[in-house]
Amino acid sequence: MGGDKAPGDIVAGAQKVVAQDGIPVILVGPPELVGDTGELELFACTEVIAMDEDPAGGVRRKKDSSLVRAAELVRDGKASAMVSAGNTGATMASALLRMGRLPGVVRPCIATPLPRLGRTPAVLVDAGANAECTAAMLVQFAQMGAAYATARFGTERPSVGLLSIGEEPTKGTPLVKETHKLLEEAGLDFIGNLEGRDLLPCPADVIVTDGFTGNVALKALEGSLRFLFDAMLGIFGTNDETKAAADVLLPYLLPMAEQFEPENTGGAILLGIDGVCVISHGSSNATAMVNAVKVAYECATGGLVEHVAEAIRPTAEG
Amino acid sequence: MGGDKAPGDIVAGAQKVVAQDGIPVILVGPPELVGDTGELELFACTEVIAMDEDPAGGVRRKKDSSLVRAAELVRDGKASAMVSAGNTGATMASALLRMGRLPGVVRPCIATPLPRLGRTPAVLVDAGANAECTAAMLVQFAQMGAAYATARFGTERPSVGLLSIGEEPTKGTPLVKETHKLLEEAGLDFIGNLEGRDLLPCPADVIVTDGFTGNVALKALEGSLRFLFDAMLGIFGTNDETKAAADVLLPYLLPMAEQFEPENTGGAILLGIDGVCVISHGSSNATAMVNAVKVAYECATGGLVEHVAEAIRPTAEG
Repeated sequence: MGGDKAPGDIVAGAQKVVAQDGIPVILVGPPELVGDTGELELFACTEVIAMDEDPAGGVRRKKDSSLVRAAELVRDGKASAMVSAGNTGATMASALLRMGRLPGVVRPCIATPLPRLGRTPAVLVDAGANAECTAAMLVQFAQMGAAYATARFGTERPSVGLLSIGEEPTKGTPLVKETHKLLEEAGLDFIGNLEGRDLLPCPADVIVTDGFTGNVALKALEGSLRFLFDAMLGIFGTNDETKAAADVLLPYLLPMAEQFEPENTGGAILLGIDGVCVISHGSSNATAMVNAVKVAYECATGGLVEHVAEAIRPTAEG
Repeated sequence: MGGDKAPGDIVAGAQKVVAQDGIPVILVGPPELVGDTGELELFACTEVIAMDEDPAGGVRRKKDSSLVRAAELVRDGKASAMVSAGNTGATMASALLRMGRLPGVVRPCIATPLPRLGRTPAVLVDAGANAECTAAMLVQFAQMGAAYATARFGTERPSVGLLSIGEEPTKGTPLVKETHKLLEEAGLDFIGNLEGRDLLPCPADVIVTDGFTGNVALKALEGSLRFLFDAMLGIFGTNDETKAAADVLLPYLLPMAEQFEPENTGGAILLGIDGVCVISHGSSNATAMVNAVKVAYECATGGLVEHVAEAIRPTAEG
């Protein structure tokens, strides 16, 4: 039910991914709102948490909402993962409250892929779940982000960088300096501080920051790329000559541009909970849904939860 | 003496801006290192603070360095502004220690222009001077940023936005939430929270954040734009057909690209000190120097210091 294009594009995307990739999908929502789902199973519920609704309140009050029920399907082993393009806060709250957090996890975090042309994406953690963080939380984010890189992209011993405002360990906030010290002793392949300019392309497989900085940086990247693409498209349409030139270049430019489209990266993943939860953009169309379901499938079959649980264990026991 | 291309490009840029714009320039540096300055006055000193030298220590120890002497020329009224492409920390320390801070200013901050196609740039404060901030400091940054927009771009009553992770006043860190409240009562044209995606193009004339987030966001913007331009140039060179198409488009694309080049924005300004100090990129070439000197000239003749002093006065007396 979630997202600006629900339920039309959500249902269409689900149907497409079932038909083309054979990934089984259960839709969750009020039948009268979802409409015709064709051959897809619909798990019926009676409520919907709106995009602008208070997340915690919505999840507490609406126990028969599509988000809460989807999370329960994962908790009860009836689904291997949940995917939502709805209210991000309510998606996280549903997943956290119904699936529970993994032992030892202080706070779940959001992992978002950062495109690297011709390579597997890097992983940014935390992309916005926790505005306030401690150094111990950031170390766990690094461990969970590395587990995600392994589970989804097959990266063995992923390299980890810490987002700061200079390469030197003495640069940054007290939080960053303390995290730097802890990461040096965390048993990870820690390559040191990285800067904002290192996000694209990121030299580390995982880049760690607090959820405030991560969210600002990620949206700054998305915004600047969109701004530049729009400006370019405007230039392409200037006159007949530029239009003809653009026709020559577009077959080369579009595949590159597609790597930066959020709808093609398949959305963000909530790490640290006992289940797989993919958070797709609120603007998700059918293509975005196809990719989000694929990411969910890769994470479930790649043993994401087990990898994260294993990565956190030393901390939990320590 | 500062920057990767000093002294060659620095001297060449100074000569160019004198010849073409008639802005008088005094060079500062050790004569044997600076070399021939043609008709330009050289204020001789014996020391240089290196790019990677500890800023505070360098300024303390090297009292006859080019940075310290340049700041003293401004303090003593022999120059109207200083421009440096050298060690950023040492530039700030020299300016702060020799010119002093304006009455009531808690901490100076760095203002950096954010391009807006076809309009005057927006101003980002703090772009990296203070990794740790209080809400009262952020309010002063907003006041000083607004004074800068007025002095340099002639913007009357500049609009001010606060960088956060959501539009709602309840989103963000405790620092952001407290700053939001204070900004509502600061007598500025405060338009509320903005997000990372709003940096380009920025809907507010001034966007306020702490120096850590500001530095990360700014470098994320610069890095992503550079990455995309490089990727485009690679595509343009694919074959003869793409090269011909690129030749048609480049006359339209380059003027746009130029608006994003740090060398054309003229560098950052240190606000809150009793003088004008322009901090140019360490990679500054002669063109960047020309533009940095022009910015210094605009700020000096636009009464930047007076505008900032006036903007801070209510706080200082309150």
